[in-house]
Amino acid sequence: MKTTFNKLYHGADYNPEQWKDYPGVIDEDMRLMKLSKCNVMSINIFGWTEIEPAEGVYDFTFLDYVMDKLAENDVKAILATPSGARPAWMSKAHPEVLRTNADRTVNLHGERHNHCLTSPYYRKKVYEINRRLAERYKDHPALLMWHLSNEYGGECHCEMCRAKFVEWLKKKYNNDLDDLNAKYWTKFWSHTYTDWDQIEPPSPLGETAVHALNLDWKRFTTEQVMDFIENEVAPLREFTPDTPVTANFMEILQDYDYYKLRNVVDVISWDNYPRWHSGNDVAMAQYAAFQHDNFRSFKSQPFFLMESTPSLVNWHEYNRMKRPGMNILSSLQAVAHGSDSVQYFQWRKSRGSSEKMHGAVVDHCGHENTRVFKEVAKLGDILENLSEVAGTNSTSDVAVIFEWENRWALNDMQGLIRDDKKYNETCVAHYAPFWQRGVNVDVIDSLSDWSKYKLVVAPMLYMVKTGIPEKIAEYVENGGNVVFTYASGWVDENDLCYLGGFPAGKLKDVFGIWAEEVDVLYPDQNNAVEMTDGKSYKAIDYCEILHANEADVLATFKDDFYAGSPAVTVNNYGKGKAYYIAFRDCGDFLDEFYGDIVDELGLTREIGDMPYGVTAHTRESDTDIYTFVQNYTTEPCDVTLSNVYTDVLSGETVSGQTTLPKYGVKVLKRSKEI
Amino acid sequence: MKTTFNKLYHGADYNPEQWKDYPGVIDEDMRLMKLSKCNVMSINIFGWTEIEPAEGVYDFTFLDYVMDKLAENDVKAILATPSGARPAWMSKAHPEVLRTNADRTVNLHGERHNHCLTSPYYRKKVYEINRRLAERYKDHPALLMWHLSNEYGGECHCEMCRAKFVEWLKKKYNNDLDDLNAKYWTKFWSHTYTDWDQIEPPSPLGETAVHALNLDWKRFTTEQVMDFIENEVAPLREFTPDTPVTANFMEILQDYDYYKLRNVVDVISWDNYPRWHSGNDVAMAQYAAFQHDNFRSFKSQPFFLMESTPSLVNWHEYNRMKRPGMNILSSLQAVAHGSDSVQYFQWRKSRGSSEKMHGAVVDHCGHENTRVFKEVAKLGDILENLSEVAGTNSTSDVAVIFEWENRWALNDMQGLIRDDKKYNETCVAHYAPFWQRGVNVDVIDSLSDWSKYKLVVAPMLYMVKTGIPEKIAEYVENGGNVVFTYASGWVDENDLCYLGGFPAGKLKDVFGIWAEEVDVLYPDQNNAVEMTDGKSYKAIDYCEILHANEADVLATFKDDFYAGSPAVTVNNYGKGKAYYIAFRDCGDFLDEFYGDIVDELGLTREIGDMPYGVTAHTRESDTDIYTFVQNYTTEPCDVTLSNVYTDVLSGETVSGQTTLPKYGVKVLKRSKEI
Amino acid sequence: MKTTFNKLYHGADYNPEQWKDYPGVIDEDMRLMKLSKCNVMSINIFGWTEIEPAEGVYDFTFLDYVMDKLAENDVKAILATPSGARPAWMSKAHPEVLRTNADRTVNLHGERHNHCLTSPYYRKKVYEINRRLAERYKDHPALLMWHLSNEYGGECHCEMCRAKFVEWLKKKYNNDLDDLNAKYWTKFWSHTYTDWDQIEPPSPLGETAVHALNLDWKRFTTEQVMDFIENEVAPLREFTPDTPVTANFMEILQDYDYYKLRNVVDVISWDNYPRWHSGNDVAMAQYAAFQHDNFRSFKSQPFFLMESTPSLVNWHEYNRMKRPGMNILSSLQAVAHGSDSVQYFQWRKSRGSSEKMHGAVVDHCGHENTRVFKEVAKLGDILENLSEVAGTNSTSDVAVIFEWENRWALNDMQGLIRDDKKYNETCVAHYAPFWQRGVNVDVIDSLSDWSKYKLVVAPMLYMVKTGIPEKIAEYVENGGNVVFTYASGWVDENDLCYLGGFPAGKLKDVFGIWAEEVDVLYPDQNNAVEMTDGKSYKAIDYCEILHANEADVLATFKDDFYAGSPAVTVNNYGKGKAYYIAFRDCGDFLDEFYGDIVDELGLTREIGDMPYGVTAHTRESDTDIYTFVQNYTTEPCDVTLSNVYTDVLSGETVSGQTTLPKYGVKVLKRSKEI
Repeated sequence: MKTTFNKLYHGADYNPEQWKDYPGVIDEDMRLMKLSKCNVMSINIFGWTEIEPAEGVYDFTFLDYVMDKLAENDVKAILATPSGARPAWMSKAHPEVLRTNADRTVNLHGERHNHCLTSPYYRKKVYEINRRLAERYKDHPALLMWHLSNEYGGECHCEMCRAKFVEWLKKKYNNDLDDLNAKYWTKFWSHTYTDWDQIEPPSPLGETAVHALNLDWKRFTTEQVMDFIENEVAPLREFTPDTPVTANFMEILQDYDYYKLRNVVDVISWDNYPRWHSGNDVAMAQYAAFQHDNFRSFKSQPFFLMESTPSLVNWHEYNRMKRPGMNILSSLQAVAHGSDSVQYFQWRKSRGSSEKMHGAVVDHCGHENTRVFKEVAKLGDILENLSEVAGTNSTSDVAVIFEWENRWALNDMQGLIRDDKKYNETCVAHYAPFWQRGVNVDVIDSLSDWSKYKLVVAPMLYMVKTGIPEKIAEYVENGGNVVFTYASGWVDENDLCYLGGFPAGKLKDVFGIWAEEVDVLYPDQNNAVEMTDGKSYKAIDYCEILHANEADVLATFKDDFYAGSPAVTVNNYGKGKAYYIAFRDCGDFLDEFYGDIVDELGLTREIGDMPYGVTAHTRESDTDIYTFVQNYTTEPCDVTLSNVYTDVLSGETVSGQTTLPKYGVKVLKRSKEI
Repeated sequence: MKTTFNKLYHGADYNPEQWKDYPGVIDEDMRLMKLSKCNVMSINIFGWTEIEPAEGVYDFTFLDYVMDKLAENDVKAILATPSGARPAWMSKAHPEVLRTNADRTVNLHGERHNHCLTSPYYRKKVYEINRRLAERYKDHPALLMWHLSNEYGGECHCEMCRAKFVEWLKKKYNNDLDDLNAKYWTKFWSHTYTDWDQIEPPSPLGETAVHALNLDWKRFTTEQVMDFIENEVAPLREFTPDTPVTANFMEILQDYDYYKLRNVVDVISWDNYPRWHSGNDVAMAQYAAFQHDNFRSFKSQPFFLMESTPSLVNWHEYNRMKRPGMNILSSLQAVAHGSDSVQYFQWRKSRGSSEKMHGAVVDHCGHENTRVFKEVAKLGDILENLSEVAGTNSTSDVAVIFEWENRWALNDMQGLIRDDKKYNETCVAHYAPFWQRGVNVDVIDSLSDWSKYKLVVAPMLYMVKTGIPEKIAEYVENGGNVVFTYASGWVDENDLCYLGGFPAGKLKDVFGIWAEEVDVLYPDQNNAVEMTDGKSYKAIDYCEILHANEADVLATFKDDFYAGSPAVTVNNYGKGKAYYIAFRDCGDFLDEFYGDIVDELGLTREIGDMPYGVTAHTRESDTDIYTFVQNYTTEPCDVTLSNVYTDVLSGETVSGQTTLPKYGVKVLKRSKEI
Repeated sequence: MKTTFNKLYHGADYNPEQWKDYPGVIDEDMRLMKLSKCNVMSINIFGWTEIEPAEGVYDFTFLDYVMDKLAENDVKAILATPSGARPAWMSKAHPEVLRTNADRTVNLHGERHNHCLTSPYYRKKVYEINRRLAERYKDHPALLMWHLSNEYGGECHCEMCRAKFVEWLKKKYNNDLDDLNAKYWTKFWSHTYTDWDQIEPPSPLGETAVHALNLDWKRFTTEQVMDFIENEVAPLREFTPDTPVTANFMEILQDYDYYKLRNVVDVISWDNYPRWHSGNDVAMAQYAAFQHDNFRSFKSQPFFLMESTPSLVNWHEYNRMKRPGMNILSSLQAVAHGSDSVQYFQWRKSRGSSEKMHGAVVDHCGHENTRVFKEVAKLGDILENLSEVAGTNSTSDVAVIFEWENRWALNDMQGLIRDDKKYNETCVAHYAPFWQRGVNVDVIDSLSDWSKYKLVVAPMLYMVKTGIPEKIAEYVENGGNVVFTYASGWVDENDLCYLGGFPAGKLKDVFGIWAEEVDVLYPDQNNAVEMTDGKSYKAIDYCEILHANEADVLATFKDDFYAGSPAVTVNNYGKGKAYYIAFRDCGDFLDEFYGDIVDELGLTREIGDMPYGVTAHTRESDTDIYTFVQNYTTEPCDVTLSNVYTDVLSGETVSGQTTLPKYGVKVLKRSKEI
């Protein structure tokens, strides 16, 4: 199956069914799509009642019309399965489809993504509607891709789901309840289960303190939605074996382990809504870039930016518009990091209901003479001119570990700063120095292949799964370099603490240290860290008290009773180096620390040092390298090039010093031969 | 029916049943009422169990005694129907009277105002008890007015109420479910109803995102409580056709559309509890004045101040006492704005339960030698001396639109600053400049008659109902003047966005503008607005980006990408002017802006410019004008009079410069002939 | 029964059952207990499933093994009854044991302390398991004491508990519902009960506003848990009449009236977890000392510190470790105030579940070479050297009233600063000046014997029970001295306000004042208080407006309309003095005020004035006085001694000036003869 494409796609979520009774609107849409160079539309999202208005009564007349219209106008369809919101008639006739909350209240019909994930009836209906869609449109010229449901999320706590969870546990623990009790450490608080049927999913009304249960529930929920998806996908595979399937992910959502979900789709896509212009746009760009890299790394192939806004959203606390230029910059950021599409929610602002004020390509005024439409059209031109980039990929010398199971366990852990461990923020903080230096980064799971990276950074890897210490040892022994931090290597995949001292097992040898205690600092407290060269940095939140065994000490703490104890260490282990950072800094230490490592390891980057807020990321074809240089500041910035490039958008040749305007982007191409 | 009176009333909520077992207390109350010149008492509020101690067993002995006592002592009774809190025996025997919450949990017996609004049994019991009260006391000399229930509030979500809501919808939409679907824009998220019975009231467990449903639920709830009231009122009308009925409103409560509720009562009354001395008392006075004017405008006749505190409440976060003088000042503020009574909650502090620490005329010490009692008695004197004011009315050149349905829709809208649009505050901000200048203002609904006003100010009129654009056009064409702001004219009464550009339809012509986008500012961000004369103001929260078509630009934005675009415009349209303000200021702009308009239109005001925090409002009889000059500052202030007046309270003649002490009030009278 | 011991105990909660499958761990534990001089372990806490793995199937093999191991190693057992967490099989088979919440939702199995307090089945099972434990271990050499359940807490709202509450009310009110109605002041809001069965426990879904009901519910809950405990204790008393029983209290928990609960145990014990190093450690020490004194005063005999952490906890918001020295200092603080033990939660960090990161003597690394273990072992030495202190008691000239029922009523009261009256903080603020001066203080209930104290301080004694005014009058008449504050003497034990002026009845004579009103200040407001000597203090939160009748005025307010009115008064009444403080200060006034009183009354203290943050508390045997001098600052401090002492820990003789290092403690002994 072809999962990459030969051009960049530009488009939006499109809901023409809302305008069925408004004559002329759909034809006007076609005209405006052409004007804005939109060539793909996601349709039929939440379209169930339209195509099955009563149980067993199907009506595809309007969807046929829309598909044909799109095809006539050379617009492709990303055709959605409608499972994200079921018809009201179904909730009424089959109340078992309604979702049960963690507090065991049962929802009424409403909103979306509120179905039971187990209900055989619901799964049968989803299968059936998907089968009909696949059979009907399998050969339609507009069909580009399948879009599963929309933004899967949440979990159901009904009795059917509980029973399925118990079955899942029985299978996982080979029917050995003693084994489960041992892993769950249930003797604590007399929680030993003596019968499988005593197990309930976590609930604020029942159990929340058995962390391994919480973790298994999250794992089950992930597999439960994967299982739900398999049922969705089956008829699509049957009728359209060559049409790829995607499901739009919701940023780095806490609900499911997306790293597992990536396996049930063919093309990764996600919905990206940064709070631009709310404060520090450079930090915002880094956070978005981190996620782009995460989603690209899922399959090491281009992904789709399924949703973004051309202007503003309606659900932030402050719904601020993108300033002129930001839509182009942030859209090309996605492309720079591997997206082969720029898509919006939504094509046309709806007249009613909750998202009527969400940004769109076409505003309520209905015409093209708006700032937003004009900028979208300008981007349409740009994407057309960048079509050669489609299908190209990125390579990286560096990987940052960002792992869902670690995140769940760490956030759920009682201890440290109880309510906010800042795992996501810390991963981004360790990513930012590479972003600033234009070093490509992959964002991966600890179970991935590390061997292709010169450097792997694993911030706060609290959970180190069985085998990982040995894997790291082998990686470093063979010349890999690794960075660990405080609060790492504490528990295994069952959330059981490692005995014998942290970090887990062999990691003490790899890093040459023993981490005895963590000092937790209140928000108004801090310590200082002094490097061997005398430079000093502020430490906040966490200071770990290390014993350097074989490791060399690169920095020590200056204050408090552990003054003089190691704050940063490095251990030469085999052919590689293992770094350990024992404190949380405010960003400036990490910047210098990784700056030195970038130099020392000679990590690949296309452009040298750039002004603050300017970055560069590359995609490569077999023959060419495309460098996306981006300026997230509000001032023009100069960048010095050491190669000669073609500016893909202007066609000009550029070299030496070049200037990027405020929010400017350049796509510079050079042949790999040179 | 006579709905105005020939003297000012002074009194309180009176619960002698609480003191039945305390010999001498009621006689002492009578003595103290005389001392404090209290001439009216609200009784029988929450008195149900006293008069119907068991189902069908009635006992009016004590109520007879109280009514007679009051009559003997020349104190009038505002006699309450007891539906605000039903007996415990009723909840036990007829649990269907218990209210169901939005999350579908059912209340236990407790608190107050917790009944189902539909329950036929409850309605029957309310009718029956009211009938007995009316029949018994219809000729009693103490009876002045009926007081319905107490502070109606809230809503019930039980199955009976749901069914009634569905019936209400069927009637509203003429049994046309397609019409409802079109208005609710239900194709969004596949929410199309295919059967009336699929409709559920909004619930956090179900639907909250269909804004038109939310709006209809609020409308239904308003009509549901009106319907409940009709049942309450029926026996009162039958037996006492000449006795007016009131229901005390709870400030500008969000729950019901009071503008509709005004129609089911004869006399408007309300409960006013400002947080005096918590910060800016001038702002507090403006907020209270705005509400007084709103309630007076409901019927364009005097209202009753049914509740206030002589000192402090017990339910604010900080229960700070009124400083000496403030009770007189704030009570006369009510009279200045049209109240014919000053009433307190409560006459005597109860010994037990939750309101025992709420301020009262008579404290737990029981005697008259308290600061509070003495100030109440002093006010009693003043009110007696002001009796000629009773029944007089006010006229205004200016109206501010404050509309419940707009408020509901705007607050519910997803967008702008999501969680706090500040509609109420914005209306008061547009009202304050008139207050400061002593210009009488009416506060009305957009559907009211505008023709009698020289100026109508409509802040944030997000919802512009069908016909309103044409009404405004006609009003301005004929010489009316109107002020609009950002975020206006976006949706119709179905919460459907207007197509073709904002503000709605013809309003673009009236104002000569097109409003393309709204820039939302974070709390630490701002813009600046420069007037054509060079004066500059700070803009916060919202800056709308306008295109001035026919309009003249009075001010432009100074910063950001829309620098130079219009911030304030005026359009000459027919004989009137239409002003549009595209930003939110911090108060200083509005003050200057409306100051100029007051001068330009020559709006009626009795006193010229006054020091900050001093204001004047007028009431008029056929022959005289009474001007209430009030000083809300803690310093003496001078006011210059251009007429010769009689000071009603001192009997002196005043003219030229006169001084108001801290918290001082003067009531100045002049004949209209002069 | 012997309830004091001849040595100090040192130990921890010990859960060897968690390590049953880990060979060698228990033997290693024994070795480490010896090393750390631990001589007592609390065992079997939450051990139910271990000893009754299925209904009626008992297995004491492992517990026998543990008891024997402890005995062999000269470690005593505080043997817990397991009722704190029941087995999962029980919840499944007998769901009536599950607790019902105030909102009437029923819990699922989970967490701990979640049982119904009435369920006959559960009580029968608790009785039975306790009987078996008592019978089995009654003669075991390891058995030192019984530990009931663990941290009793919470309440159940099921129908069985409701019925029991109603029975309790019938008994309390002698079947006189009219009496209950009168006490509850139910005529307010028509809440009159006409049948006992109409009464429901307070609930957010029902009644919360009848404060006397809330109060009775709290009283019932206290007696209900006492009743539950009686059932727990019965078999223990039967089989082990000479073994004392304790139940660990959770700081000054709001749930139950511990002052009543003290009567159902033989030895008081409690769990103490201050937030050391979070800000002001001196204030933290005062708060801990106040609680120690409270728990010691419960029985005027030594208590046990049942739980503390050697390092950090896992449930604070910021889980900061105790700095070196703090564990010794804070542990000896407990001993100084009357503890005969220092015990930790927990002996060994568990591998899994929610408390795996909670501090412990033995860390996950498993060995003794940790900072924490070494400090624990050092403390073990110290406690061994202090064994002569065991069983000694303290005497105090001063008592501070801290009363649960007053606290409940005051916190529940609607008024003043509604959401936080700061009762606990105010009691500690009035306690702190004595702490700073090394004056021993008892913390008692108003119903206790006052006659042994020279001074009784009753901060915010809002509820003054029937008889207390007369008791105070008699106490002062006879030479006692008393301090009252604002907001005192307002209600009786039924939460009914006193009539005739505050403070209640005769107290007006005792203090020579009438308190007319309380001015409540917003956080940004303040007043000032000027002493007759000209010194001035800041007043915040509350300023009460007093009329000094017979009292002398010691200070007056400087600002606002009540400037010049009394802020502090004293009344000579009989042979004693009655002080009244009408405002809340920031600490500096109270420090000077009580400093003067300490001098004037010549209150006993062993050491004179000490530097800020240094304190001294004494315990006495028949022959000797032990003075614990403690330094809570981070700097060395000098203390001047006027006696000659033996330093118990060093054996040296000390006199004159002596220096305490940072966090230093000295135990100074002198013979009472000298």
